[in-house]
Amino acid sequence: MSVFTQERLTALNAAYARCIDNDELEQLGDFFLDQCLYLVTTADNYASALQAGIVYADTRAMLQDRVMAMRDANIYEEQRYRHIIGAPVLLEQEGDTAKAESPFIVVRIMRDGSTEVFATGRYIDCIVAQPDHPLKFAERIVVCDSCNIDTLLVIPL
Amino acid sequence: MSVFTQERLTALNAAYARCIDNDELEQLGDFFLDQCLYLVTTADNYASALQAGIVYADTRAMLQDRVMAMRDANIYEEQRYRHIIGAPVLLEQEGDTAKAESPFIVVRIMRDGSTEVFATGRYIDCIVAQPDHPLKFAERIVVCDSCNIDTLLVIPL
Amino acid sequence: MSVFTQERLTALNAAYARCIDNDELEQLGDFFLDQCLYLVTTADNYASALQAGIVYADTRAMLQDRVMAMRDANIYEEQRYRHIIGAPVLLEQEGDTAKAESPFIVVRIMRDGSTEVFATGRYIDCIVAQPDHPLKFAERIVVCDSCNIDTLLVIPL
Repeated sequence: MSVFTQERLTALNAAYARCIDNDELEQLGDFFLDQCLYLVTTADNYASALQAGIVYADTRAMLQDRVMAMRDANIYEEQRYRHIIGAPVLLEQEGDTAKAESPFIVVRIMRDGSTEVFATGRYIDCIVAQPDHPLKFAERIVVCDSCNIDTLLVIPL
Repeated sequence: MSVFTQERLTALNAAYARCIDNDELEQLGDFFLDQCLYLVTTADNYASALQAGIVYADTRAMLQDRVMAMRDANIYEEQRYRHIIGAPVLLEQEGDTAKAESPFIVVRIMRDGSTEVFATGRYIDCIVAQPDHPLKFAERIVVCDSCNIDTLLVIPL
Repeated sequence: MSVFTQERLTALNAAYARCIDNDELEQLGDFFLDQCLYLVTTADNYASALQAGIVYADTRAMLQDRVMAMRDANIYEEQRYRHIIGAPVLLEQEGDTAKAESPFIVVRIMRDGSTEVFATGRYIDCIVAQPDHPLKFAERIVVCDSCNIDTLLVIPL
């Protein structure tokens, strides 16, 4: 029996999205290993195998620092986000490590109530199972469909 | 083995959304206990612990009455809705009762075909399991991300 | 134990969406039986029991042909799509065949980065289980909520 059931992968995504959308960013690092990669990039860059993009962090501590810095930006106070993550596709697994891909849509809600699709794309993840622990991300690469996401990015995706 | 599996919670949400989007509103009350709370509110109100908002019903009969009244409004004939509900997060459970939270996005499709994001938010639910019955809502609090949802609201969310 | 678990139905939808959104259209036919129906129509037509609409194919070969023709259209190069498919509702099953319904939203991302909701609706599927094979579609009827989807349609939904 695989430890990477659809149920567990789905629960990981759901908890991650809830952490961001409920503004519980202090906990976002808990979803990652100490040594990890969190990268936001565009589909064009990803297809070109460019590691360019918006690198958030390659350790959990760096990720957590940057996430908290985002919250300090004034603009952050003025908007909310809502993630809807589609069902994950398990691409491969070996031992305690798996690769999976999940589509997402993020809607942004401004202070005046106006609502729009802010970003879409897919998470390409490397996920690690440890005994008696929830699944964690060794890598979460956020591949945005749109080419001009970066100038607007003020929260984690 | 918990009766509140992700599969059962997901199926409850999916059937609820289908009931609304397929315009089978006569059945919406079936998802609730006789004594229940169905409340639509905003994130700001919810964060302030205000019970203000758009209270739809505190019994199943009242809920069903109000839902049917919505259908009579002329404007309802002119539009469709489409719910996409993200995976539920099980927050706590004790015996036959559980609390769960699920994100949603609702798209509105006007008679002329124009399509827009109408509402986003999260369902905060108290769900009850009874032997040989589907899960039912003791509470469904619909917390909308946007502050100005109320003036437009003509269908259940 | 049913072969049509929520997990298997969800995995089928997820793999189908991924095939389209990742532009792996050569594989789209693999999700269908040799004799199949793939039909895109509107909610109004479907409610009137009209078979009118945009018939894509009634065999896998025809479906595959048409899908590849879409890719050749210049306009296709200029845009991306992102499907988010909600949880399937199992409507009925008998032996190795089941009927299920799943809601969807498709977002379109233009070359300049602009992003909008392109289509919403529901898949109404007849799905067949074969020993040692993934589930396949005998029928996938794509019922779009909007009445004017057809003039814009350049990719499979």
